[in-house]
Amino acid sequence: MTAVNAGAAATPHPLASAVDVLAFDIFGTVVDWHGSIVREMQALHPGVDAAAFALAWRAGYQPAMARVASGELGWTLIDDLHRMILDQILPRFGLAALAEEQRQHLNRVWHRLDAWPDSVQGLTRLKRKFTLCTLSNGNIGLLTNMAKRAGLPWDCILSAEVFRAYKPSPATYLGVARVFALPPERVMLVAAHHDDLAGARACGLHTAYIERPAEFGAKPPKDVSPRPDNSLHCTDLNALADLLGC
Amino acid sequence: MTAVNAGAAATPHPLASAVDVLAFDIFGTVVDWHGSIVREMQALHPGVDAAAFALAWRAGYQPAMARVASGELGWTLIDDLHRMILDQILPRFGLAALAEEQRQHLNRVWHRLDAWPDSVQGLTRLKRKFTLCTLSNGNIGLLTNMAKRAGLPWDCILSAEVFRAYKPSPATYLGVARVFALPPERVMLVAAHHDDLAGARACGLHTAYIERPAEFGAKPPKDVSPRPDNSLHCTDLNALADLLGC
Repeated sequence: MTAVNAGAAATPHPLASAVDVLAFDIFGTVVDWHGSIVREMQALHPGVDAAAFALAWRAGYQPAMARVASGELGWTLIDDLHRMILDQILPRFGLAALAEEQRQHLNRVWHRLDAWPDSVQGLTRLKRKFTLCTLSNGNIGLLTNMAKRAGLPWDCILSAEVFRAYKPSPATYLGVARVFALPPERVMLVAAHHDDLAGARACGLHTAYIERPAEFGAKPPKDVSPRPDNSLHCTDLNALADLLGC
Repeated sequence: MTAVNAGAAATPHPLASAVDVLAFDIFGTVVDWHGSIVREMQALHPGVDAAAFALAWRAGYQPAMARVASGELGWTLIDDLHRMILDQILPRFGLAALAEEQRQHLNRVWHRLDAWPDSVQGLTRLKRKFTLCTLSNGNIGLLTNMAKRAGLPWDCILSAEVFRAYKPSPATYLGVARVFALPPERVMLVAAHHDDLAGARACGLHTAYIERPAEFGAKPPKDVSPRPDNSLHCTDLNALADLLGC
C-alpha cells in the first residue's frame, strides 16, 4: 500500500500505467449523502432531527439489499428500496402524514446529493488519463441525474442495475472488467468503504481507499486509518490524481 | 412533422418542453462508420477496395443480430458479432492471412469511429437542456471508448447490452423510459434510420430523423426525404439544437 499522499507526485505511482479503468463507489465516496440529506431536511422539515433522520434512512440500506440478495425480494432498484425504508421511518420522525407527492420528492433527494468539494476537480484530472465509471448500487437514472446536477464527468455510468446484482457480488466487479474487455487487474475500484474494496480485491481488482471522515456527520468521526491490503490510500480525489500523475 | 430547420428557431418547437431525455442511435447517426472504416483501411491495407469492404462488413450486421434475436445464437455482444463477420469477409478481400493480433486491432475500428462534423457541437448544445443518452446496439465498452476518443458528451451510455435485447425490440426503447422513470412520451429517439424510429414510435416515444446522406459513402446517395410519421426532421444535430432552442 502507498501511504497518504500530501501533494503532486514527482513520479507517478507505478499503478498509473498498470490500470486503464477507475471504477468509483458513489454514496459517501464521491458525494456527501449525510450532509446533503441534512441540508434538505432542515429546509423542508426544520422540526426534525435531520442528522438522525439521515442516519436512520441510510441504516436501512444494507438490510434492504440483503433481502434482495437472499431472494426474499425480487430484483429491486435502489430508488424503490429507498422508498420502502423512507415509508418505514417517517412515523418515527413525526412525518407519518407526509403526502404521496412529498414522499416522492423527498425520496429523490438521493438524485440531488452534493459532491464532496474535491470530487469534480479530482475526477476531471483523472479523466485525462483513465476511463472513469461509476460502480454503485444506485440505479442508472439516479446516478445520471446526480452526475448531471453535480457536474460529475463520468465516461460511463455502471450500476448494480446493469449487472442485476448488488455489491459486493463478484458479478459487479468482474462485470466492469468484462464491459471493457480487460483483465481485472487493469481496473481499480475507488471507494471509502473497506468491505467494498475487499470485494473488489477478491476479484483481482486494484483498490484505492479514500478517507471520508465526515461521511456519517461531524461526530463521532469515522475511522479512516490505512489498511495495508489496499493498493492506494488517499485523503481525497485530488490526492488520488496527484498520486497517479494526472 | 416539423420540416427541415434552416437556422436558430425564434421560438423553440413545442417538443422542447415536452421531452426530458434524448436517446441517440450511434452508427450512422452520430458517427460516420463508412468514412472512418474507409480511412483506416486505406492506411492499413491500401490494396483493398476500402468502400466495398466497409459496406460488406456493415451488411453482415443485421443478419448477425437476427441470429441472436431468433435464438440461433445466445446473447452476443456487437464486438463479437463484428469479429465473426470480419472473419467471414477477410478472404473475399484478399486478407485471409491476416494475423490474430491484426484482426483484433481492425475489429476495434468500431471503437475508433469519427463523429460527423456537427455531432460534438450539436450534442454539447442539446446537453444544456436535455439528458442525453446513447441507445445503440453497440456494446457499452465500445460506446464508452468511442465517446472518450471522439469527445461525445453523453450523460449516460445505454446499450442493447443493458437490456439484453437488440433494437428494434421494444425492451430497448421502453428500457430508456424505465431507466429514467418517465412515460415513453417524455423520451425522443434521434436516429438516421426510419426502421429504428418506427420501433421507438410504436412504443410511444417521440422521434427525430437526422439526414445523413453520406452514411453509405458518396454514391449512390441515401434517400433522406422526410416521412410524416416522425415528430421532427433535421439536417444534422446542430439543426436539432436550433429547433429545440438550445
